[in-house]
Amino acid sequence: MVKTAMAQPVSPLAPAQFPAMPPVSGVALCVFNTGLRYQGRPDLLVARLAPGTTAAGVFTRSLTRSAPVDWCRQALADGQGLGRVLVVNAGNANAFTGRKGVETVERTAAAAARAFDCRAAEVFIASTGTIGVTLDDSKITALLEGPAPAQAGSASWHDAASAIMTTDTFAKGATRSATVDGVTVSVCGIAKGSGMIAPDMATMLAYVFTDAAVSPAVLQAWLREGVDRSFNAITVDSDTSTSDTLMLFATGAAGHAPVVADDDPRAAALRAALFEVLLDLAHQVVRDGEGATRFVSVRVTGARSDQAARRIALAIANSPLVKTAIAGADANWGRIVMAVGKSGEEADRDRLQVRVGGVLIAAEGEPVADYDETPVAQHMQGREIDIEVDLGLAEGRSQVWTCDLTHRYIDINADYRT
Amino acid sequence: MVKTAMAQPVSPLAPAQFPAMPPVSGVALCVFNTGLRYQGRPDLLVARLAPGTTAAGVFTRSLTRSAPVDWCRQALADGQGLGRVLVVNAGNANAFTGRKGVETVERTAAAAARAFDCRAAEVFIASTGTIGVTLDDSKITALLEGPAPAQAGSASWHDAASAIMTTDTFAKGATRSATVDGVTVSVCGIAKGSGMIAPDMATMLAYVFTDAAVSPAVLQAWLREGVDRSFNAITVDSDTSTSDTLMLFATGAAGHAPVVADDDPRAAALRAALFEVLLDLAHQVVRDGEGATRFVSVRVTGARSDQAARRIALAIANSPLVKTAIAGADANWGRIVMAVGKSGEEADRDRLQVRVGGVLIAAEGEPVADYDETPVAQHMQGREIDIEVDLGLAEGRSQVWTCDLTHRYIDINADYRT
Repeated sequence: MVKTAMAQPVSPLAPAQFPAMPPVSGVALCVFNTGLRYQGRPDLLVARLAPGTTAAGVFTRSLTRSAPVDWCRQALADGQGLGRVLVVNAGNANAFTGRKGVETVERTAAAAARAFDCRAAEVFIASTGTIGVTLDDSKITALLEGPAPAQAGSASWHDAASAIMTTDTFAKGATRSATVDGVTVSVCGIAKGSGMIAPDMATMLAYVFTDAAVSPAVLQAWLREGVDRSFNAITVDSDTSTSDTLMLFATGAAGHAPVVADDDPRAAALRAALFEVLLDLAHQVVRDGEGATRFVSVRVTGARSDQAARRIALAIANSPLVKTAIAGADANWGRIVMAVGKSGEEADRDRLQVRVGGVLIAAEGEPVADYDETPVAQHMQGREIDIEVDLGLAEGRSQVWTCDLTHRYIDINADYRT
Repeated sequence: MVKTAMAQPVSPLAPAQFPAMPPVSGVALCVFNTGLRYQGRPDLLVARLAPGTTAAGVFTRSLTRSAPVDWCRQALADGQGLGRVLVVNAGNANAFTGRKGVETVERTAAAAARAFDCRAAEVFIASTGTIGVTLDDSKITALLEGPAPAQAGSASWHDAASAIMTTDTFAKGATRSATVDGVTVSVCGIAKGSGMIAPDMATMLAYVFTDAAVSPAVLQAWLREGVDRSFNAITVDSDTSTSDTLMLFATGAAGHAPVVADDDPRAAALRAALFEVLLDLAHQVVRDGEGATRFVSVRVTGARSDQAARRIALAIANSPLVKTAIAGADANWGRIVMAVGKSGEEADRDRLQVRVGGVLIAAEGEPVADYDETPVAQHMQGREIDIEVDLGLAEGRSQVWTCDLTHRYIDINADYRT
């Protein structure tokens, strides 16, 4: 079960480099190698958060969710939305591990609470990796009760983003700044995830930190709104993880008067910055979709409702036939029509308009007269593919993002465990 | 666009040989090469049906369905469930071809009606292949009005099953016999389809013929019931075609008194034979799933309802992560748990039981004590994989069939058109 650091080639869709991310006052990171699964690379992230840090979270809706997810949901409620420690390990998901898995989480939280002098309900835990393998938490608790408190602050954002990777081929980070009451605040986020990515929740794990001061209720409201436009609008393979977790922490260390209403005009720029960080991270997850070679935007307009548009966009984005055609740089728009037809949402074959790369291909139930595939074929050779479908029925609209389905997806997933 | 006969290797899951299928009295087959897309192989099937032949059909629920599907639905209604001619071409789906596609079908039906001396509403048409390319029907009508009537009866079931293939790697046929009132009747069916296979409807095309005498209403009732247990219980890639068509014709040539009630005890064996033919054909479609190397049965029991069990079974069968694990012979049961969790149906993590190859792997929310992966790993090396999930909630049950997701699926679909 022990793996050495993976030698996956970096996704061709990866950003040129990890962004320059400033420290967030009140957040102190450190990373370790537990040896649980990976050797020669950090696989444990511990984040110490300043007293008074508020927390919000959105978690997988899977009914077979992991023990750490159950813990975090409960801790958010029990701890009144305050957070002091975050502990994330990569390589073992501690999912479907029964009573033993629950005890593992409880012992880990207790050890972190002792080490960082806080309540257990202020400790948030996540595990990502293989399902159904008992997690030996002694390798984590020994580090928490040993070197972790002294080393808090020794790791960079890049270290943190790297420590939570599993099949990821690049570390994912994003940052924006804003001002609140004239005070500059930072929003910094990290994410991991490249397979088992679908809405509700899309990513495996993402953590966003700010030094702004925001009440737990506002944080939670912003997070729900932001996730709908970002992580819930991406899909790699339509599969939903048992461990998906997105959390947002606000340390308040920037020192402005707290934001306590979600439409507080003082916080408009902060809210926008948060949404940008979420979208940036979500796009990076797609760009690291297992085996991805093309980043695909699917925009649907003219549907009966935004929800109908979303379902149609996802039917296109999740269609194996659409995704393999994109992998083959084939402008096979017939499969887009097929996917619209199978979505179950209202559509009128003879009103549909299909565009690829901005070029109108089909309208009024057939290919447009004198359709020239040349510019579309050229577009399909690129790294960024734009698909647009107009239903011609009403005003509903949605945009989702996905990647193509290639041989490497199968390479990666046909022997993940072995 | 013209292709030579395809050189795909035959699926490793193919039956050893095409079955010995008897002629069905009242059905006369012939095949031709239209040259529309394929050269060097028949790509047009014409079946002449005796006067009085009854017909029933089940069609794709796609909202972007093809012109031939629209035609067949209307013809079944207009023709009072009688059928005299079936015309099927392979290589061009005549789907999303607008007004021109509708006219193509109308001209084809008119030509067949003239050539075979029947009403246009007794002509059934199907087209399979690429979407969105105008079909030059003159190449079909010339054959219908030329050699077709004289050659009716010249082709075998194997010829017919071969003529309707596109990416199929083997011809699909099935036959059973039964007695009605002491008279032996035959049920013979052919099918094609290997991708874009998912419930509602599963196959691209399937045609079943019997010399029994059965009223249109009974035929339709049997077909609906039979399809639910067969073609609507298989999935290759979750995609639904714009052209899926399943039709059933009864010539009545066997000479017994007609069956006019769907629970007529005289017809119990006939009905059972029909269901067996449908299931046999549906399984063959899965066995020819694009790139398939393993045939997978997913049985779900203990769900809140049969419908819930069906949804859970399909969530497992359609999961790319489950299907790639099977391709890699990896007994990764954690992904089965994940798929149950994402189905949206009621499940209790701690009551789930998961079996692979009959071996209990997980129960009470964790792997069973002393779980020995050896027999399961051995099972995963075989061609036939059995997955069983018991929800432990109630009595709902369902069984569906699928195949694994391999590199060849991507090979086939990344360059189908080019």
